[in-house]
Amino acid sequence: MNSILPLLRGASLRTPLKLSSRIVPRAFISTIPTSVADFLNFKPQDAVSDVNINGFVRSVRAQKRYHFVSLGDGSSLESLQAVVPADQAEGLSIGAAVRLHGSWIPSQGRGQSHELQVERAVILGPSDAKTFPLQKKYQTPEYLRTLPHLRPRIPFNSAVLRLRSEIVASLIKFFGSRDFVQTHTPILTSSDCEGAGEVFHVSAGDSARSSTESETPQPFFRRPVYTTVSAQLHLEALAQALGNVWTLSPTFRAEKSDTPRHLSEFYMLEAEISFTDKLGSVMDLVEDMLRHVCTDLTGSRSKNEILTRVGDGSSDLATAEQVSQRWDGLIREAWPRITYTEAIELLKQSEVPFIHRPHWGKDLHTEHEKYIAKKVGNGHSPVFVTHYPRDIKPFYMKTDAGNHDTATPCTTVECFDLLVPDFCEIAGGSMREHRLENLIESMHNHGMTPRITPDDTTEPSETVENNLNWYVDLRRWGCPPHGGFGLGFDRLICYLSGVQTIHDTSAFPRWYGRCDC
Amino acid sequence: MNSILPLLRGASLRTPLKLSSRIVPRAFISTIPTSVADFLNFKPQDAVSDVNINGFVRSVRAQKRYHFVSLGDGSSLESLQAVVPADQAEGLSIGAAVRLHGSWIPSQGRGQSHELQVERAVILGPSDAKTFPLQKKYQTPEYLRTLPHLRPRIPFNSAVLRLRSEIVASLIKFFGSRDFVQTHTPILTSSDCEGAGEVFHVSAGDSARSSTESETPQPFFRRPVYTTVSAQLHLEALAQALGNVWTLSPTFRAEKSDTPRHLSEFYMLEAEISFTDKLGSVMDLVEDMLRHVCTDLTGSRSKNEILTRVGDGSSDLATAEQVSQRWDGLIREAWPRITYTEAIELLKQSEVPFIHRPHWGKDLHTEHEKYIAKKVGNGHSPVFVTHYPRDIKPFYMKTDAGNHDTATPCTTVECFDLLVPDFCEIAGGSMREHRLENLIESMHNHGMTPRITPDDTTEPSETVENNLNWYVDLRRWGCPPHGGFGLGFDRLICYLSGVQTIHDTSAFPRWYGRCDC
Repeated sequence: MNSILPLLRGASLRTPLKLSSRIVPRAFISTIPTSVADFLNFKPQDAVSDVNINGFVRSVRAQKRYHFVSLGDGSSLESLQAVVPADQAEGLSIGAAVRLHGSWIPSQGRGQSHELQVERAVILGPSDAKTFPLQKKYQTPEYLRTLPHLRPRIPFNSAVLRLRSEIVASLIKFFGSRDFVQTHTPILTSSDCEGAGEVFHVSAGDSARSSTESETPQPFFRRPVYTTVSAQLHLEALAQALGNVWTLSPTFRAEKSDTPRHLSEFYMLEAEISFTDKLGSVMDLVEDMLRHVCTDLTGSRSKNEILTRVGDGSSDLATAEQVSQRWDGLIREAWPRITYTEAIELLKQSEVPFIHRPHWGKDLHTEHEKYIAKKVGNGHSPVFVTHYPRDIKPFYMKTDAGNHDTATPCTTVECFDLLVPDFCEIAGGSMREHRLENLIESMHNHGMTPRITPDDTTEPSETVENNLNWYVDLRRWGCPPHGGFGLGFDRLICYLSGVQTIHDTSAFPRWYGRCDC
Repeated sequence: MNSILPLLRGASLRTPLKLSSRIVPRAFISTIPTSVADFLNFKPQDAVSDVNINGFVRSVRAQKRYHFVSLGDGSSLESLQAVVPADQAEGLSIGAAVRLHGSWIPSQGRGQSHELQVERAVILGPSDAKTFPLQKKYQTPEYLRTLPHLRPRIPFNSAVLRLRSEIVASLIKFFGSRDFVQTHTPILTSSDCEGAGEVFHVSAGDSARSSTESETPQPFFRRPVYTTVSAQLHLEALAQALGNVWTLSPTFRAEKSDTPRHLSEFYMLEAEISFTDKLGSVMDLVEDMLRHVCTDLTGSRSKNEILTRVGDGSSDLATAEQVSQRWDGLIREAWPRITYTEAIELLKQSEVPFIHRPHWGKDLHTEHEKYIAKKVGNGHSPVFVTHYPRDIKPFYMKTDAGNHDTATPCTTVECFDLLVPDFCEIAGGSMREHRLENLIESMHNHGMTPRITPDDTTEPSETVENNLNWYVDLRRWGCPPHGGFGLGFDRLICYLSGVQTIHDTSAFPRWYGRCDC
């Protein structure tokens, strides 16, 4: 690198290089970056010739002799500047996929340390800029949602998708370090875990004949089949086989709600701890897991990019301060844990007026959860609310044996919701009723009719709830105390990225009335 | 550890310990294992007192003073031996979930280096051994398939599930090291990538009213919606936003075939390389990926356990030699690559008689694939077969520009199938037609009617194929050359575990007529 190499052809394209910027042929450099992100971090003192950079044209500023091209490839929020001689600039329109060949040189302009001095531009995929639906100017989220196939190209959106990828990798590390087995639970199921009935029905049929919903589909499975609302029940079966287990898999709700917090298809992170009788151990796991992920990703490119971008004051995003506090809050030790009964007391004592009056035995409304998250977590820390009334929770939760609230007017269950500031419920978990008799009693109380003996071979009736005999069976033969949780993965991404609605964190969101692409 | 500690209570339960086996209180040991697998590898010279082991009773051999219990917890194929005083053995029946407290001591019996000398046994989840459907004796795969909720408890099955988990973790490492972004592609879609029409229809409705398939479902989305048959098309959109991408996600086929190689719901591993015009780079990726995984897992517990178990001559499994060769074959360098045309020539020259006569232009039958895998891969190495005739492949594959087979009677496409010994096709990939005009022409040739201009706002008709205008749009604005592959993940697990049918590798398999649990 010390020998002064002859200036190559590309070197004199724009302006004479500074003395310190000699051109080093590519062969002399051991590792040349390939992605735009890596080029942005590649800051050699001397120019490097003969490099190729692939990417998409984000914008072009045409001057007489040169066109200044901002190039991105999805690997970074920031663009790379390419200086293209006018005679090489044909077809370099916004959106075009190009291969630029030239020298990577220290930049004399402001805004970037280095830039690509282009010798040759090859248009790999042309773009008709006149019709290209993505524009540099502000476009509303509503409009962009009509373009799910193009919208991920917006640099911030691709940063959110990279964040998702990094979080998945971090989760694998976390659960691996604790010997949890990652499992693939089924999507198609004949069981409805929550019993809420908001399930999608699945049927097969000759698509030529019944391609519209109004025609009668043909039976394919022997019983009614749905897309799963939760992996929990299957995860419990696997926990009895494998020990501690987890899954990150798609779940579905046919809810007709169009809110910033609901999707009809979403990823759920669920884990089940075998051989535990402590609700606290399940909460510890949630806490440790999120702390691990946030610590692991401190300093990651995607996190930093998100913090950079949320700072720009867009109304579609939380503020940079909010997003920073969210990350910090999840890293914080010992999140407050209060019982539902204590929460109701706090709500009753509140001076803030609520639309819905807090009442023991009724579920918490979002306004209540927001208040609790702020009051108990000081607006920074997540808060666990535990031991909800039995009657407002699903049949599988274990009745509370302890004596947490002597003032409790009726029975509670060993469960929790995890509330985070601004966003409220992000996860929920419970101890599962592992005792056969208690489970059967609970199912009866919830209007279900499980079979009592294992040799009762009556075919389950055609209703969803009655196809849970297999779940009851798990208790007949060696069911240890166990508990677990489910975390809305898209909600987590939404929360950590500062995106205001969950429709804009998933690449191809599905909700009521919307399944484009 | 050198001081001779007083013998504790548990030490004299069965027989006097050998002199070398002193009892070390638990507090003196820095890390006591928690899982059965870890205990099996925990071989202290001295006995360790005051340990707890959780698990399930696999078998019991009752003698007058002691019951010998085989204990498993899903972490290992091998059981741990626990010696339980007769007065503590009540409820220790097969399948029971128990916590055993005692001393971990060097064993004087044969078959294990150490064993647990139990002082106290706690039944955490009783098991009625009389009705327990899983028996120690041989039970047919057909019978076990009726018990998907219990079947994973069979030690070999849990080893296969652990292998799956380890392979997933290894894949994450592999793709992470190459800067591929892991994405979550949608399950519900209004597109049918393969155009084969074998899709499941999805609809919502009041489950109380339409819980059987025969009633008319209510519309939920604005258009017909299906469970996806492949993530490829969505992955292509994401590749234009993020660069190289991959996904491991559920896919569905409503095929009424009941073969050892087909499921209605299965995990597909799909990856897309952006900015490549070389089919070879896609094949390299498949090869590197599988080589990485198999190398990474050499020496892993799950692999070793599988090799131990497949050696026992069960007809449900391949032989140990076969399974070893499969792993070795995937680690091998440079898998043979031949063209379809060459394959047809080989088949024609074969002395083996085929049921289906090989014929250029027709798809290869399983018998042909088996022959090729054996002939070209010598029964050990996987084989890529490339450049199939255009007319038997999907619309999105790129027409072959090269001149691989001068004898080719009609046009081929840049694609490959990966054949492995015994099992045949396990993956397939192609270059994608990235040029707008060529794609539209190919769609027309396949009987589809894409819109020609982007401003044609005619609503897509209600057929699946016509909802691919978004896919065509990807070519209008900056589509670089790209290619990718899809690998049947359950097939890979089946292949590497030696399980003879894919119904027995998935925990909750779904196929024609079968969606239990």
